[in-house]
Amino acid sequence: MSSSFGDRVKISIFGQSHSEAIGVVIDGLPVGEEIDLEAAQRFLDRRAPGKNAYSTPRKEGDQVRVVSGLFDSKTCGAPICAMIENTNTRSKDYAQLKDMPRPGHADFTAEIKYHGFQDYRGGGHFSGRLTAPLCFAGAVCLQILERRGISIGAHILSIHEQKDKSFDAVYITKEELAEVVSKEFPTIEDGAGEEMKAIIQKAREEGDSVGGVIECVAIGLPVGIGEPMFDGLESKLSSIVFAIPAVKGIEFGEGFGVATLFGSQNNDLFYIEETGKIKTKTNHHGGSLGGISSGMPLVIRTAFKPTPSISKNQATVSLEKGKNTTLSVTGRHDPCIVPRAVPCVEAAMAIALLDLYELFQ
Amino acid sequence: MSSSFGDRVKISIFGQSHSEAIGVVIDGLPVGEEIDLEAAQRFLDRRAPGKNAYSTPRKEGDQVRVVSGLFDSKTCGAPICAMIENTNTRSKDYAQLKDMPRPGHADFTAEIKYHGFQDYRGGGHFSGRLTAPLCFAGAVCLQILERRGISIGAHILSIHEQKDKSFDAVYITKEELAEVVSKEFPTIEDGAGEEMKAIIQKAREEGDSVGGVIECVAIGLPVGIGEPMFDGLESKLSSIVFAIPAVKGIEFGEGFGVATLFGSQNNDLFYIEETGKIKTKTNHHGGSLGGISSGMPLVIRTAFKPTPSISKNQATVSLEKGKNTTLSVTGRHDPCIVPRAVPCVEAAMAIALLDLYELFQ
Amino acid sequence: MSSSFGDRVKISIFGQSHSEAIGVVIDGLPVGEEIDLEAAQRFLDRRAPGKNAYSTPRKEGDQVRVVSGLFDSKTCGAPICAMIENTNTRSKDYAQLKDMPRPGHADFTAEIKYHGFQDYRGGGHFSGRLTAPLCFAGAVCLQILERRGISIGAHILSIHEQKDKSFDAVYITKEELAEVVSKEFPTIEDGAGEEMKAIIQKAREEGDSVGGVIECVAIGLPVGIGEPMFDGLESKLSSIVFAIPAVKGIEFGEGFGVATLFGSQNNDLFYIEETGKIKTKTNHHGGSLGGISSGMPLVIRTAFKPTPSISKNQATVSLEKGKNTTLSVTGRHDPCIVPRAVPCVEAAMAIALLDLYELFQ
Amino acid sequence: MSSSFGDRVKISIFGQSHSEAIGVVIDGLPVGEEIDLEAAQRFLDRRAPGKNAYSTPRKEGDQVRVVSGLFDSKTCGAPICAMIENTNTRSKDYAQLKDMPRPGHADFTAEIKYHGFQDYRGGGHFSGRLTAPLCFAGAVCLQILERRGISIGAHILSIHEQKDKSFDAVYITKEELAEVVSKEFPTIEDGAGEEMKAIIQKAREEGDSVGGVIECVAIGLPVGIGEPMFDGLESKLSSIVFAIPAVKGIEFGEGFGVATLFGSQNNDLFYIEETGKIKTKTNHHGGSLGGISSGMPLVIRTAFKPTPSISKNQATVSLEKGKNTTLSVTGRHDPCIVPRAVPCVEAAMAIALLDLYELFQ
Repeated sequence: MSSSFGDRVKISIFGQSHSEAIGVVIDGLPVGEEIDLEAAQRFLDRRAPGKNAYSTPRKEGDQVRVVSGLFDSKTCGAPICAMIENTNTRSKDYAQLKDMPRPGHADFTAEIKYHGFQDYRGGGHFSGRLTAPLCFAGAVCLQILERRGISIGAHILSIHEQKDKSFDAVYITKEELAEVVSKEFPTIEDGAGEEMKAIIQKAREEGDSVGGVIECVAIGLPVGIGEPMFDGLESKLSSIVFAIPAVKGIEFGEGFGVATLFGSQNNDLFYIEETGKIKTKTNHHGGSLGGISSGMPLVIRTAFKPTPSISKNQATVSLEKGKNTTLSVTGRHDPCIVPRAVPCVEAAMAIALLDLYELFQ
Repeated sequence: MSSSFGDRVKISIFGQSHSEAIGVVIDGLPVGEEIDLEAAQRFLDRRAPGKNAYSTPRKEGDQVRVVSGLFDSKTCGAPICAMIENTNTRSKDYAQLKDMPRPGHADFTAEIKYHGFQDYRGGGHFSGRLTAPLCFAGAVCLQILERRGISIGAHILSIHEQKDKSFDAVYITKEELAEVVSKEFPTIEDGAGEEMKAIIQKAREEGDSVGGVIECVAIGLPVGIGEPMFDGLESKLSSIVFAIPAVKGIEFGEGFGVATLFGSQNNDLFYIEETGKIKTKTNHHGGSLGGISSGMPLVIRTAFKPTPSISKNQATVSLEKGKNTTLSVTGRHDPCIVPRAVPCVEAAMAIALLDLYELFQ
Repeated sequence: MSSSFGDRVKISIFGQSHSEAIGVVIDGLPVGEEIDLEAAQRFLDRRAPGKNAYSTPRKEGDQVRVVSGLFDSKTCGAPICAMIENTNTRSKDYAQLKDMPRPGHADFTAEIKYHGFQDYRGGGHFSGRLTAPLCFAGAVCLQILERRGISIGAHILSIHEQKDKSFDAVYITKEELAEVVSKEFPTIEDGAGEEMKAIIQKAREEGDSVGGVIECVAIGLPVGIGEPMFDGLESKLSSIVFAIPAVKGIEFGEGFGVATLFGSQNNDLFYIEETGKIKTKTNHHGGSLGGISSGMPLVIRTAFKPTPSISKNQATVSLEKGKNTTLSVTGRHDPCIVPRAVPCVEAAMAIALLDLYELFQ
Repeated sequence: MSSSFGDRVKISIFGQSHSEAIGVVIDGLPVGEEIDLEAAQRFLDRRAPGKNAYSTPRKEGDQVRVVSGLFDSKTCGAPICAMIENTNTRSKDYAQLKDMPRPGHADFTAEIKYHGFQDYRGGGHFSGRLTAPLCFAGAVCLQILERRGISIGAHILSIHEQKDKSFDAVYITKEELAEVVSKEFPTIEDGAGEEMKAIIQKAREEGDSVGGVIECVAIGLPVGIGEPMFDGLESKLSSIVFAIPAVKGIEFGEGFGVATLFGSQNNDLFYIEETGKIKTKTNHHGGSLGGISSGMPLVIRTAFKPTPSISKNQATVSLEKGKNTTLSVTGRHDPCIVPRAVPCVEAAMAIALLDLYELFQ
């Protein structure tokens, strides 16, 4: 159960940070869909580390190998299995984690849950590494959605106190999404991006880390995607987005902002375009009414906590000795995972939407 | 798919606002659990309307009838089915909804999704009515969790701009939860509650509505509840909480607040109590690390939008005539559903936690 | 898990032999489908007992009440919930079962599995009573399938040594199915039916019971229904058919007969009709190749064991005293459940096929 | 959906006959279980072809590579992914299958279902090749079951008209199972085995094929394994056994034989052993009552059709030309897949039983 998602398009992710390989099985895709593996690899490369000053110097070299599910480059009804060999892993870095759980990590909860049998190297299957197959699966789903006129794009809305401007929830276009997604550091306003990089760099120098918020939008959804009650857009999207490590909150449309609004302010009024299409003048609902797509842009924001791995000394416990101690997390870590998480959020949204899209057929 | 939830403890909700009855089937409960139906009814009564000035004058009279699944008042391995007859429904109120979708409601999306075949009376199966069986199922799960030392309680954290104080995420006790839950208007500070009631009353008088935030906590969870990746605490809880109409956001622990923190501020440091128990000094993580319970209080906050049904005139469209028009939603509506939603959030948490608890066994 | 079935069209059955009511929730049906409840009731009546000499004198009076899911007599996207009140139950008949498990029944396994908490009255939720909601759900699914040109019908292929002739697996028509289904004792050859009734009557007089075989066919299936591997026609159908108490075997097409054939005998050769339609000259495969419908009639046979409840003295144990004893099952029982099981097999096939049909869309 | 199985222990199989690799992801296994990969490989080797005169000369060289899910040779809570590279595939053999469907194969149904996009080489993902990962998953589950005192073994009960003796359904021992399983041609009576080999060899020489029956038994099951209704032992086992290509029937205990018995003959009478253990004197029920294990040996028999691929000329159609034609299936094929299917049936049973065993915990 735990590592699979979806009712119609089912993905099953496997692997640990330091296992021989990680990967994903994607079942239930529509057939005859051409998949551009190079484009999928480029999508995946967006989450790769070591590209620059503000992320970890590790080179992961995540090269995807698709071993099944495609025939003449098209989906053929058999599940796709994509593998990524784990390379450049330094197990010795992690020897002490078995004894001293890192604050903010799953080391402690996994140790107890799995009675000490979990793979503690690099966070095991709780590692951010597992978002690589998630991204690949998302890239595949996204190609299929785009063929149906649906586009998805995300940007960094904030890092610490520095904010980017928000997407226009009513008029955002496919072109605007494509442009921000193409950026090496995806913000709408480049100036804000520069400030954010500086904040991240400063945190690195101080052996600290910072958090932030990602805003993700899907446009071109037909009206009617999403099932009532437990399979609504919000339920489906949140359940997969929270599978991305470090996410602590998610909101749709106006989100927590609705709590301070009056109904007369929050309600989005319907009108008919000259084209005859029914739209809303505002989009506080964020594209979902009753868990079902309204045809307006689908807007979510997700909060990411600062990377728990910091080199500053922190108090923790020695499980073996049963006493308090202190720890400085060595090894190579991102001072901020938000930039690398941008494609992960897009991927999660793509997977959830294709699953619901297929259920809707 | 759409109306059922759970992997181990599976609930399946049925009914529409104006169908003969609504209810729920609960499958997979542990056997031999005594269920106090009167206590469950009292729990359900907390969401009943018409109790006071700040909620709708409708009398729903939600009397639950359990028709299966209990033997000598104990779970017996067969699914529990609980029914609530729909009474006091005024269908005539809703005749126009088929043509003129209410802003902020699922009328429009349901009309398109179901090609006009949906039950449009009172929101059909998108109605808040369906949270009644959810509450009953939650009450049943909660009794089983309490027998295992787990307590759940929620309060109104804010209505519009008026805030209540937050639970103490580290030291909150079972007794404090019981006390706030027992209140007719559940806030920690009664003064804040009075202010909130006044805000709601004012909105009613103006034919408007207001939103708010509910904070819900579970204590007594053992370490290890929650499955990795897609079945983590956050994924499971959010997917069911978003099934409650009007929820637009959810956050865990520090939630969106983490975005502006440094790792050195956000990380919760482990220490060993004299009892030998491992805890964290702070609880920004909100009781979940890697989607798995840490043993610290599990803390969530959910944002509710203002009731979309307001008597003020609003622009909308006539689907039949295909032209713009205006609408004033008549009938009996809550100017604020937050107070009635408090037990719904507790119920959703109880169902999700028991499902994960049983998976953990 | 245990009491729900289906991936797209999900049914959840509830109730025990002596609970207040039994019923079923049906979720995921296509919308806008008119459901003729009187026709569904007539279908259900086919499994009713007390109709004649060869079945139990009990009058079950299974009147179905649909409390949700239909609007203007059509499916509306909300789950259908159908209830049957349990009436005319004599609990005293069953008092001793708690102590002395009936040979051939689930009394013993349920007692151990549920640690003595199961509802032992009349077999609890293992009772044949639960096939009533199954039949209702099947009747609903069947009406939807018939609207798509698919017909299902079954007959009694054998009772003890007495055989009826088999359906023509290649040329069976809708009309022939309708005719046999309309019979009060469904056999193709009435003479065989009379012999079977005599065998059943004789068994009753001797305080014994007999078993038999039911053959069920679906025609009009398009090519392509069924998913590969674990969701093939055989997997789906067998998993629901075995939910009918007393079924001990199932076979498709030639079934166990294939074991003694050569490939050159068993292979069904393809040819093109003048209409351009591709068919097979024979139908040993029974309408399924690779788990997917071939367009030929889908043919299954299921073996039913003799009713375990017999009045003859039988050895058993007293769980309480922990010693061997003997038992004579009193109360009212069918000397042969095969005649009443005919609509149950049709219903099971209808549910499984609609689920796969919707998955195929 | 289609390629995954299980509620608690979930397996997801991927690959096609001629894809780069095939494999399986196994999620939800209990943690801390040591897995002997060499023993698993030996189990898998039992289904390997090319070992002798009566199977295909192809050398498949199915070497399993486990890329995740084990840490220090033990299950660690992360899914196991096992890969088998596809080698020695001759794609040219299969070029014509796209146009001329082989009688008895899924070529035709897959062509229609997947609109011509399916991987038609060697049967694509309908190929018997996919039973290799099934066998590996079964071997893993079997090691875990054996640690709990449960043994599984199967033998060839019949090939064409030649029968082996049956297992003793009441007194079969672990040692007897181990002995028959260790045989290169698993029959209880070696004489019967020699006759069967001769029948298979003769079929090969005539360019034909033969079918047979496999009997499989599990012993050591505690009382209580299996869920009511749709997740009973019969439902679970049949749904996975029918995923093995060529299976056309399955029966439990007395199976179809019950149809000709009286209740007084078929009922298995309970008695208490001197040990205090409750058993039945006979085992017509085959170890399952109400879908739940009774503690008696679990006995199933499955019918396998003769291999559809035969070199004899057969009538078929040219989909391209839309006319009738004839076909002689070239390439390397088993004249009888029954011997190689023996471990597949054991594997299927092991997977289903571990899934139910974990649900039972």
